[in-house]
Amino acid sequence: MTIEEITARICAFRDARDWMQFHNPKELAVAITAEAGELLQHFVWQQPGQIEKRVKEKMPELKDEMADVGILLFELAHNLGVDLGQAMLDKIERNETRYPVAKAKGSNAKYNEL
Amino acid sequence: MTIEEITARICAFRDARDWMQFHNPKELAVAITAEAGELLQHFVWQQPGQIEKRVKEKMPELKDEMADVGILLFELAHNLGVDLGQAMLDKIERNETRYPVAKAKGSNAKYNEL
Amino acid sequence: MTIEEITARICAFRDARDWMQFHNPKELAVAITAEAGELLQHFVWQQPGQIEKRVKEKMPELKDEMADVGILLFELAHNLGVDLGQAMLDKIERNETRYPVAKAKGSNAKYNEL
Amino acid sequence: MTIEEITARICAFRDARDWMQFHNPKELAVAITAEAGELLQHFVWQQPGQIEKRVKEKMPELKDEMADVGILLFELAHNLGVDLGQAMLDKIERNETRYPVAKAKGSNAKYNEL
Repeated sequence: MTIEEITARICAFRDARDWMQFHNPKELAVAITAEAGELLQHFVWQQPGQIEKRVKEKMPELKDEMADVGILLFELAHNLGVDLGQAMLDKIERNETRYPVAKAKGSNAKYNEL
Repeated sequence: MTIEEITARICAFRDARDWMQFHNPKELAVAITAEAGELLQHFVWQQPGQIEKRVKEKMPELKDEMADVGILLFELAHNLGVDLGQAMLDKIERNETRYPVAKAKGSNAKYNEL
Repeated sequence: MTIEEITARICAFRDARDWMQFHNPKELAVAITAEAGELLQHFVWQQPGQIEKRVKEKMPELKDEMADVGILLFELAHNLGVDLGQAMLDKIERNETRYPVAKAKGSNAKYNEL
Repeated sequence: MTIEEITARICAFRDARDWMQFHNPKELAVAITAEAGELLQHFVWQQPGQIEKRVKEKMPELKDEMADVGILLFELAHNLGVDLGQAMLDKIERNETRYPVAKAKGSNAKYNEL
């Protein structure tokens, strides 16, 4: 499925409800952060050995929170005139330089701490 | 661009660095929330009339933060075996019922407060 | 009420349940962010003119979320050996320099943009 | 140090700069979440065995982020007319009922999953 197809569906939903008036970039960033917080909420206090079980129990909720973050993110990129897919590929390319395989393999250090 | 193509690129980048060991679902949810927080940071204290100017000044940073959220979200969905595009369409469909046009048009009330 | 008194109460609650094992600084930071997200959730999509009414309707929930953030923050500071009250006063003092009244009065610009 | 003393200091700082106009409860909730995100940022990808070292290296930054969350939280409570210390004690008392020692000792389950 393409990002563009889904984005078109998101915008049609929004415009049918005349919601663009509420969706300035700040409000979308607020909503993305709040939904990311809901996603995170499912993992609070969970220890490494509990994650797999947690994920199985909470799959419908996790799917829902991921969808919410995605919907808001696709709309924000669209409203800002950003090609999100291209921005992601550009970022990965930049990360190729920041995290060269020879230095970054098996390490979780940040690029400025490698 | 399809979600699947970008996801394949993300996983290739990750696997070349042997990073799957760090990317359990909780860690990805933590990283998504932290990146969403960076996106939000650009708008803190900004008033409605300042948003447009802010967005123009901070476009490279905003593009970058959106890409980060997207990259982590696509990987999380993939790792959980979730078809993110389908999950988003399913959520929009559910929202069609929760927010019928007749009731929701022009309103920013939550579905349980409509 | 002093921060120290409340912190003692928080630690007694935690230790009676043998929860220190779950409360490393990362987990506390995760929990603080998730609770901050719940606080924020109450304001998503709300426009400036709606905030006052919102606050009145949601006061018990807001009080609850603020308490949660505070409880986790006090414990985190305590666990790290940080005197939170002093750290706050130190930060305000630093902000006095970053945001001199003559330049910052009536402005919402960040210190590096003043 | 009392919450009230520090809060008085926070409000004096704010009022000298005429910033109350920017500090409605939503904006404060946005700022709290963004600062919590900065706190979390220091722990992204860090594994349990790395936390202690991380905390030592990042102590000044962590102190700073905790102070920021605290300053904003104390102001929000004050602006809403909430006695934050009392709200925290009330919440701990409620948690005593939700998490009875006999059931909650050594468990990280949520109260509705105990």
